[in-house]
Amino acid sequence: MAVMKVKTDIEIAQQTELKPIHVIATKLGLKESDWEPYGRYKAKVSAHTLKKLQDHADGKVILVTSINPTPAGEGKSTVTVGLGQALNRIGKKAIIALREPSLGPSMGMKGGAAGGGYSQVVPMEDINLHFTGDLHAITTANNALAALIDNHIHQGNSLNIDPRRIVWKRVIDMNDRALRHVVVGLGGQANGVPREGGFDITVASEVMAILCLSNDIEDLKKRFSKMVVAYNYNKEPVTVRDLGAEGALTLLMKDAIHPNLVQTIENTPAFVHGGPFANIAHGCNSVIATKLASKLGDYVVTEAGFGADLGAEKFLNIKTRAGNIDPSAVVIVVTVRALKMHGGLSRDNLKKEDLAALKRGMSNVEKHVETIKAFGLPYTVAINHFISDTDAEVDFIKGWCADKGHPAEVAKVWEDGGAGGEALAHKVVSVIEEGQKHFKPLYELEATIEEKINAIVTKVYGGKGVFFSEKAKKQLATFKQHGWGHLPVCMAKTQYSLSDNPALIGRPNDFHIQVRELKASIGAGFIVAITGNVMTMPGLPKRPAAHNMDVDPNGKATGLF
Amino acid sequence: MAVMKVKTDIEIAQQTELKPIHVIATKLGLKESDWEPYGRYKAKVSAHTLKKLQDHADGKVILVTSINPTPAGEGKSTVTVGLGQALNRIGKKAIIALREPSLGPSMGMKGGAAGGGYSQVVPMEDINLHFTGDLHAITTANNALAALIDNHIHQGNSLNIDPRRIVWKRVIDMNDRALRHVVVGLGGQANGVPREGGFDITVASEVMAILCLSNDIEDLKKRFSKMVVAYNYNKEPVTVRDLGAEGALTLLMKDAIHPNLVQTIENTPAFVHGGPFANIAHGCNSVIATKLASKLGDYVVTEAGFGADLGAEKFLNIKTRAGNIDPSAVVIVVTVRALKMHGGLSRDNLKKEDLAALKRGMSNVEKHVETIKAFGLPYTVAINHFISDTDAEVDFIKGWCADKGHPAEVAKVWEDGGAGGEALAHKVVSVIEEGQKHFKPLYELEATIEEKINAIVTKVYGGKGVFFSEKAKKQLATFKQHGWGHLPVCMAKTQYSLSDNPALIGRPNDFHIQVRELKASIGAGFIVAITGNVMTMPGLPKRPAAHNMDVDPNGKATGLF
Repeated sequence: MAVMKVKTDIEIAQQTELKPIHVIATKLGLKESDWEPYGRYKAKVSAHTLKKLQDHADGKVILVTSINPTPAGEGKSTVTVGLGQALNRIGKKAIIALREPSLGPSMGMKGGAAGGGYSQVVPMEDINLHFTGDLHAITTANNALAALIDNHIHQGNSLNIDPRRIVWKRVIDMNDRALRHVVVGLGGQANGVPREGGFDITVASEVMAILCLSNDIEDLKKRFSKMVVAYNYNKEPVTVRDLGAEGALTLLMKDAIHPNLVQTIENTPAFVHGGPFANIAHGCNSVIATKLASKLGDYVVTEAGFGADLGAEKFLNIKTRAGNIDPSAVVIVVTVRALKMHGGLSRDNLKKEDLAALKRGMSNVEKHVETIKAFGLPYTVAINHFISDTDAEVDFIKGWCADKGHPAEVAKVWEDGGAGGEALAHKVVSVIEEGQKHFKPLYELEATIEEKINAIVTKVYGGKGVFFSEKAKKQLATFKQHGWGHLPVCMAKTQYSLSDNPALIGRPNDFHIQVRELKASIGAGFIVAITGNVMTMPGLPKRPAAHNMDVDPNGKATGLF
Repeated sequence: MAVMKVKTDIEIAQQTELKPIHVIATKLGLKESDWEPYGRYKAKVSAHTLKKLQDHADGKVILVTSINPTPAGEGKSTVTVGLGQALNRIGKKAIIALREPSLGPSMGMKGGAAGGGYSQVVPMEDINLHFTGDLHAITTANNALAALIDNHIHQGNSLNIDPRRIVWKRVIDMNDRALRHVVVGLGGQANGVPREGGFDITVASEVMAILCLSNDIEDLKKRFSKMVVAYNYNKEPVTVRDLGAEGALTLLMKDAIHPNLVQTIENTPAFVHGGPFANIAHGCNSVIATKLASKLGDYVVTEAGFGADLGAEKFLNIKTRAGNIDPSAVVIVVTVRALKMHGGLSRDNLKKEDLAALKRGMSNVEKHVETIKAFGLPYTVAINHFISDTDAEVDFIKGWCADKGHPAEVAKVWEDGGAGGEALAHKVVSVIEEGQKHFKPLYELEATIEEKINAIVTKVYGGKGVFFSEKAKKQLATFKQHGWGHLPVCMAKTQYSLSDNPALIGRPNDFHIQVRELKASIGAGFIVAITGNVMTMPGLPKRPAAHNMDVDPNGKATGLF
C-alpha cells in the first residue's frame, strides 16, 4: 500500500464526472417548478415542495453518529455519504442529508467537510466555500438584527434595553479570535452607544439553529419573532417581535430556507442544508431537508455532529420533536485509530498494532450503544476502515461486537466508495426490517429543566448527576418565571469525553456534570446548558490553510483540501 | 394624474413577465458553456467569455451621468435602464451595464437601486438583497484578510507590523454605526492583540474596487497581491503578498468575478456587476461587465456614481485606462426638481412651478457639460421627466439647451419605459454618428499626484486650486518614495457640490479644495484624496425600512421598496 500515490480529496472530486443537476432532480421525481439551479451542479429545491408531498409515505431515516471524536478522526460524513451510495448500489432509493460546511474554518485548517476519498459530495470546493449563500444569509440576518438593536438604543431606546444585558452577538463566517471580545460604539455621540460586545462564528447564530428546526417559512418567522436579544432595565426579556424585525429577518432568509441539492461522486442525490454547532445548538442539518429527503426517497441517510452523546442525543430529543421525524435506525461509526486513542494511546503511536489499547477503547462505543438502545432504536456499528488498520485490529472489533450481540460491519467507503459500503448497507437494511423499533425521546417536555439535564447526564453520559453553579441556579429560577421551563435542553459540553472534562477518554464513571450557565434560545426552542468552556469563535493557526490556497487562470481551485 | 393610483416599484417589478435567463443569454449569442444559472432569471456569464470574444468589434459605450445629486433625486439608473430599453425599441442591439446594489442600505431607507417605475432591472428583490452573492464574497475576502493580519501579529508578528498602523479595515454589508470605531482583541492573551479598528460598509472595500477594475482573474490576483494592509515599525508598507494571502483572496472571489446577467422589465439584457463607492473608490460597475457588454452588443449603456464631477470623472480618467475602454458619448441626466434645488429651493417647495429657481440651477448642468466637452466626448442632456413637472419648466430647460447648442431630450422612462426614451435614444445615436469624438483623459499619469489633483479641481470642479493639509503633504512625500506617484487619483469629495462644501449648490466659483488626507489603494491602482468628512459606514435612521419588510407564506417579498 505504501507505494501507492494517494489522491487528495479535491483531486478525486475534480476528476468526478458530475451529472447536470436537472438529471439528479428529475430522477428524484421533481418537476422543474420545484427547484432552481445554482450553477450547473447545485440546486435549491423549494421548501414548498414538502407541503405538496405531505401525503407521500415517509422513507426510513437512518442516523449516522459516532463514538466521541478524537484527533485521529472518525469519518462520520464519509460513512454517511458512502452508506447512501451503497444503499443505491444494492437497489434502494436512498438520499443523503448532510450539514453544510462553514467557510471560516477552511481558512484555518486544511480539510473539507463534505466527506472524503470516494465518498464525497460534490462540487466540494463550492460546498466548502460560498455554496448557495445560506451561511451568508444567516450572517446578514444575524447582523441586521444586531444593527437594529444598537440603532434602537442610539435612537432613544424606547424599549428600555439595558446595554449591559444585550445577549445578541454579531457573527462572521471566519475564524477571527480578535473579534471574540470587542467594544463597539466608540468614536463619540454620532457613532452609537459604547458597550461591550463580541462576535461568534456564523454557525453559532440562533438564526442557524432556527433555520434547521423550522418546518416552513411561517414557522421560521414565528421562531425569529420569539428570539430573546436583550433584557431591559427591569430584567424582562426583549424579543425580535418587540423590535419589529421578524419580517425583515425572514425576508433575508427567504432563499436560504430552501434545501440545497447536490450529488455524490457516484451521483447519489444529497441534500446539504444547514449546519448549526453541536454544542450551543443541536448540530443537525435542516428539518426541511431531512423531511424532503424522506418524502422523495425510501431511505434517508443523515448525520448529527460530534459523538452520540451530543449530536445523536440532540437529534433524537430535539430535532425529531421539532420536525415530527420518526427515525428507523442508528449507525455508530468507530475507527481503530480513534478507539486506540480512547484506550489511552497518543496520536503519534496510532500506526502500530495495539490490541490492548483497542480493547480498553471499546468502553467508549459500549456506552453509546447503550444510549441508542435506551432510545429504543435498532443500530449497527460501522467500522470505518483506514488503510493503516491491521486485520487483527479489525477482527478484534468484529469479535467484540459479535460477543456482545451488536450488529457490526466494516465500511471501506473512503477507498472504495459505495462498493466498500454494501455489506454495511445490507446490515442496516436488515436491522430495520427486523423491526425492533420502539423509539421514544429520553425525557418528557413536562419535566423541569433540571430533570431534563439530569436525564441526559445519567442516561446518555453515564454520569452520577449534575451540579449547578450559583449563576445557573438563579437562571433556572428566572427562566421558569419567563415560562421557558417546558423547552427541551441543548447541552453544550466538550465533544471529546462523555463527561465535561475533555481529558476523560474511554468511558468515565463516577462523575458529575457542572452546569456553569444557561442560555435561552427561545426561537430555536431550547435551553442551552453550558458546561466547561465553549468555543463559539475559533482562531487561525500559526500557518493558516489560506496560505496554500490558489486559483489557476481558468478559475479552478487548488490547495483547498 | 393625481387620481391615478401609482404602483410601487416592487409591484411593477413583480407583475413583469420575465423571460427565462437562457432565452436572454441565447439571444446575446452566448453558448450554454459560457454561463451558469442562478435561479431561473439570473446568470453569471463567465469572465473567460471575454477572452473568447476578443477579436469581436467593440460596441459603442454610452456613459450616463448627472448633475450634482440633490435630495430630490435625479434618477440616473432609471434613465440608464430606460435608454437601454429605448435603443432596443428603435432597432439597436443594446445592453445595459449597471452597478449592483449593496444590501445594507436597503435595511435603512426605503428605495431600491435597480432603476424605477417601468425602467427597472428585475428580479429587483433579488438584485437588491443577496443577488448572486458577490457582495458576500467581497465581505468574506476582505475579512479573511483582516483575520490573517491580526492572526499574524498574534502568532509572533514576523513582518514587524505596527498594530497602530494597520490600514485594512473589516467590512460588513450593513448600515451599522456602532461598528465604525471599535477596539478588537480584548479578553486576554488567548484572544489576540488589542488595538483600535473599525468596519466600513462592504462597497467601500478595496476588494470591490479591484473586482471592478480587473480585466481577468490573473489581473485580480495581481492587484490583490499589491494591496497595502499596514505599515511596519520602520514605516514601510506591508502588502497582501507579504502575508501570502493573494491566492486565498482570489479563490474566495472566483465566482464573483463573473458578470451577472439579468433583464429589464422589457426583457433588455443587463449586466449588473460590481458597485464600488464613488467617493473613496471610482463608482463604476466592473470593467469585465462593460467590456463583455460591448463585445455582445452594438451599444452599451452604463452609468457611474453621483454627479459628473465624481463618477464620470473617474470613469473617464480611471476606468477607461484600467480596462482600455473607449467611450462614445455621455448622457447628462437632469431633473426639474433637482435643478430647482440647485437654484436654491428647499425640498418642501419643489411642487410649485418656479422658473427663476430653475434658471439659477442651470449653472450646475452648465459646468458638467463643459467638463464632458473637455474630455472630448459628444453628449446629450436627458431631462428625466417627473409627473409633477410643468410644461413651462420642461420647455425652459429645452430652450436653455437649444440656446447654448447642447443636444437635449425629455425622457419619460419612469412612467412609459423604453417608449418614453425613444426620442432620447435617437438623439444619442445621432450625436454618436456625427462623430465629434476626440476622447482623452484630463491628466497624464506621468504628472505628479499634486498636478493630477489640481487638474481635476480646475478642469472638472471649476475651482481655483488645492490646499493640502500638513498630513497630506507628508503623505505626498512618502507616497512618492514608495513609488506610487504614477497612479491616477480618486477624489473623495461630497457629491452634493462641485466644491468640497456640500452647502455650495449650483455652480460655486472662487473656491479651493482642501485635501485633508491621502489613502493608498495600490491594488485598485489609485491614490484617494480625501476632502471633508467621507462616510464609509452609514447608520440606520430612527425608523429603519427593515420594520416594513415581510415575506408572505409563498416566499414573496413585501414592503421592500
